[in-house]
This record gives sequence, structure tokens and C-alpha cells, in this order.
Amino acid sequence: MKFTEKLISASRANNSLVCVGLDSDLKKLPDCLKNLDDPVSEFNSGIISSTSSHVCAYKLNLAFYEALGKRGWDILEKTLAQIPENIITIADAKRGDIGNTSDLYARAFFETFNFDAITVNPFLGYDSVQPFLEYKDKGIFILTLTSNPGSRDYQYLEIEGKPLYMKTVEKILKWNVNENCGLVVGATHPDELSEIRFKADKLPLLIPGIGAQGGDLEATIKSGCNRHGELALINLSRAVIYASNKEDYAEKAGLAALDYKNKINNIREPFFKL
Amino acid sequence: MKFTEKLISASRANNSLVCVGLDSDLKKLPDCLKNLDDPVSEFNSGIISSTSSHVCAYKLNLAFYEALGKRGWDILEKTLAQIPENIITIADAKRGDIGNTSDLYARAFFETFNFDAITVNPFLGYDSVQPFLEYKDKGIFILTLTSNPGSRDYQYLEIEGKPLYMKTVEKILKWNVNENCGLVVGATHPDELSEIRFKADKLPLLIPGIGAQGGDLEATIKSGCNRHGELALINLSRAVIYASNKEDYAEKAGLAALDYKNKINNIREPFFKL
Repeated sequence: MKFTEKLISASRANNSLVCVGLDSDLKKLPDCLKNLDDPVSEFNSGIISSTSSHVCAYKLNLAFYEALGKRGWDILEKTLAQIPENIITIADAKRGDIGNTSDLYARAFFETFNFDAITVNPFLGYDSVQPFLEYKDKGIFILTLTSNPGSRDYQYLEIEGKPLYMKTVEKILKWNVNENCGLVVGATHPDELSEIRFKADKLPLLIPGIGAQGGDLEATIKSGCNRHGELALINLSRAVIYASNKEDYAEKAGLAALDYKNKINNIREPFFKL
Repeated sequence: MKFTEKLISASRANNSLVCVGLDSDLKKLPDCLKNLDDPVSEFNSGIISSTSSHVCAYKLNLAFYEALGKRGWDILEKTLAQIPENIITIADAKRGDIGNTSDLYARAFFETFNFDAITVNPFLGYDSVQPFLEYKDKGIFILTLTSNPGSRDYQYLEIEGKPLYMKTVEKILKWNVNENCGLVVGATHPDELSEIRFKADKLPLLIPGIGAQGGDLEATIKSGCNRHGELALINLSRAVIYASNKEDYAEKAGLAALDYKNKINNIREPFFKL
């Protein structure tokens, strides 16, 4: 099944555009878990069981797992095994290397771990992205305009009268031969999001920056969805997974995910006439 | 000790600018190792013991270890433990993420694994690089002009009359407050290498692209060293570690590393009047 079809089917099944970011930092877990053998897996398991009927995807930022050394890889495997089959899994890896090396990253995340999608950094150009693109049924989300302040350093540079992020959009449309590309665009840039969505009207957008980073939800939904009110993944990490740091952490995360799902639907349903 | 001092002392001790890239691909190991429990660790151990007196550094490209799943992290630890204390270790990770995430990558590679240096992708801008820069005694090699064909897609784009890679050089010189930055510049661009070295005259350069990728050794040494004939790390991966695929793989790798060390010294000693 094509990635886009799987994504649409996951978001329709739960009527949700919410993607929960399992950025589980050992240092921020509830105290009640800290004495367990494997607190991160336990935490993730709690979050997944309470949120999985309110989301269309989980995004796992690899940094949080690599910071744990080899245990991190174990936790990653255990966590992936807990995620229901029909929900999208995204390796937020931001990888990109010369061709023969990107090949190995693609093997790691698409074969060894069997993620549905990955985030890729395009700074090394086409041959660094191409090994990912060859996996026709996987989703390749390419960093286009990131949510952080440093996005100004490169992504807004003017090239022949256009900002670099629009050059990236053009490149992605060309690279999308297997119809498996998506774009990462931060919710902290609502006007640019709208400009990018207009140009890449059929591609999925992965949108971080709501919640702790302060992006505006209403503007993001109206600008980020396609004309059917779909194909936008609204990522929430800290605002959901750390909704409580007590024993009710899972329950509260579930309520926070449900609340975001409803807020998003209350914006998109009338606006897109779903 | 500052990273640059450690690097100079390592390269003087072995009179070598050679950095061996331990890009050990399970699929390419000699047949004689294939039935072992842990062929990659065994292979790396053989390569390290036969090359460690001819090099100043080892570079471990993380993709090759991540492709092995959680075993890969074990192999990484075992391999690092085999490298003599005075030789530089570089995590070729090409990471870069929003601030709170780059923090975790920095923790992973500088604390959990205790690498001496890392490669970083600057596409997400200053706040994505800054958490690495805070480790004052580590080396942060920032991708400036990569060795692959795709380097043309972004790194040569013209910004205000200058190629983007020169903008990157300017940024690095600004970011180098703790004197711990370096640059990654491919040997496949000798003219640009010379232009970059002229501008960043005091910073270490990590130079891949010699060997399998076809960069010219003489031009690279003359352009890439500082005016004392130092601070250039000439990376060799496939050309050294796969010098033989038979039982003599370690011996042949040692001879290949020694041969490169001598070739490099035969170029740099008369040219820089060492």
C-alpha cells in the first residue's frame, strides 16, 4: 500500500490528524516510573495505550533513544512493537549522507526497524535522498522549513529571488517520482506554510511546532491541510506526553491527545466542509 | 585539552594525517569472518591493531552501525574500546535537529560514547549546532562542501554573489567562539578546498573523498593543510579497510594505511618545508 493511502486510512479510522511525538526523555519521566528496570519502555507503553485511538501516527525522535546508548535501541524495538499495525510510525531521524551511506540508513529504519516513514535532511542533495526514495511504499518527509529559530540561517536565504525553502519544495516535487515524498514544515511559520501547501497540494505535510514551541493551531490547520482537510500530520510531543508527571501520566496524555484531536476537528470540519 | 591540540599531538606522534573510516559493512567483510558470532567487531579489531600506528584518527560512520540494529550499538562500544587513548575518534553522524533535540545527540555521542569529535549538518541553523559547541574540548566538524555529486543541489547555490558553502564558512567562523569548530570539505573539490582553507586558516578540516570517491591526493594535501602542513584529516575508508577480502585483511589494511601516510608525507614534507 502506498504511504499516502496508509496515512489517509489511519487518519480516517480515528478521525484524527494528531501525531504524537514519543520524545521520551529519561530525565523528564514521572517519578513513579524512575525505579523500574526500563522506565522509558513502560512510559511509552502507557502513552501508546491511552492515545492510540486518538492519533493517526507516532513520531519517534531518534535522538531520545540514541542518548540512552545501546539500551535505546532495545527500547525503540519494544516501543514499535506496542504501536497498533494500522497507525503510521515515523522515524524522526533527519538523516542524510552520501549515497552509499544513506543506503544503510534506509536499511536501518525501513528494514531493521520497519518504520513507515522517515524524516530526511536534504542539504547533501539528491543522491543523499535517493536511497530512501527507492522504498516506494514508505514515506520520506524532507526538511523544508523547520520550526526552530535557526531556520532563518539557511532556509530563508534568497536564491534567484526566492527563499531557499521554496527551492526545496521545487526539488521535492521533482524527486517525487514514486509518489512517496512529504515535507516537514514548522507550525511556527503559518504564512509560509500556506505558500508551501499551495505549491505542494497533493503531498503530506508533517507539522511540528504546536504546543511547547508556540505555533498557532487554527492557522496551522487552515493552511496545512490539503483541500479535503487531510494530509497534514499535526505533531504534539511535550504537550501530550508530559501532560502530567504523576501516576495518572498515561490517562492525562490520552485526554490531551483527545482534546487536540477535537480542537483540530472543530477547526477543520466546518472550514473544509468535511 | 582542546580538540585541536589533541589532534595535532595525535598526528605528530604517528607523523600522519590519515584518518581511517571504519565503515564496516557486514556484507563486505572477508569470508573468513562471516561465521563468527560478531564478525564486525572482530574485523574492526583487526583493522585497528594493524593501522593504529599509521593514523591520527578513526572516523566511525554511524549509518553502518545503526544498520545492524541494537547489536550495532554494542559493536560501536567494543570498537571504541579498542582504539588507543591518544588517537582521535570521530562520530560521523551528520546530525542536526532543533535545540532541545541536538542536546540529546550531543549527550549521546560526547557523553554516552565519549567520542572526541562529531560531524554536524548545519541546515537547521545556529540553535541546532549550538548544543554541540558547548562541549569546549570536543571537535565539531560542520558539513561545508560534501564530496558527493548532490553537493551541487544546495551547497553551490548562489547567495548574494557567493556560493552557499562560503556562507557556511563565514557562519562557522562566527560560531567558533570556543575554538572547537572544524569543517568537512570533500577532496573531490580541490579548488574550493583551497578557497575554504584560505578563509578558515586556523581550523581543522576533515576531508573525505580520497580513494573510492576519486579525489586527487596531491591537490588535496597542498590545498587542505594549514600553512604548517597540519590540521587536515585525510579520511580513507574503503581503500584501506577492504584492501584485501582474504585472511590477510588486517595486514593489507595496515600496509594500505602506511602507504597513504607515506604518500601524504612525501607530498606535504617538501611542500610545507616540515
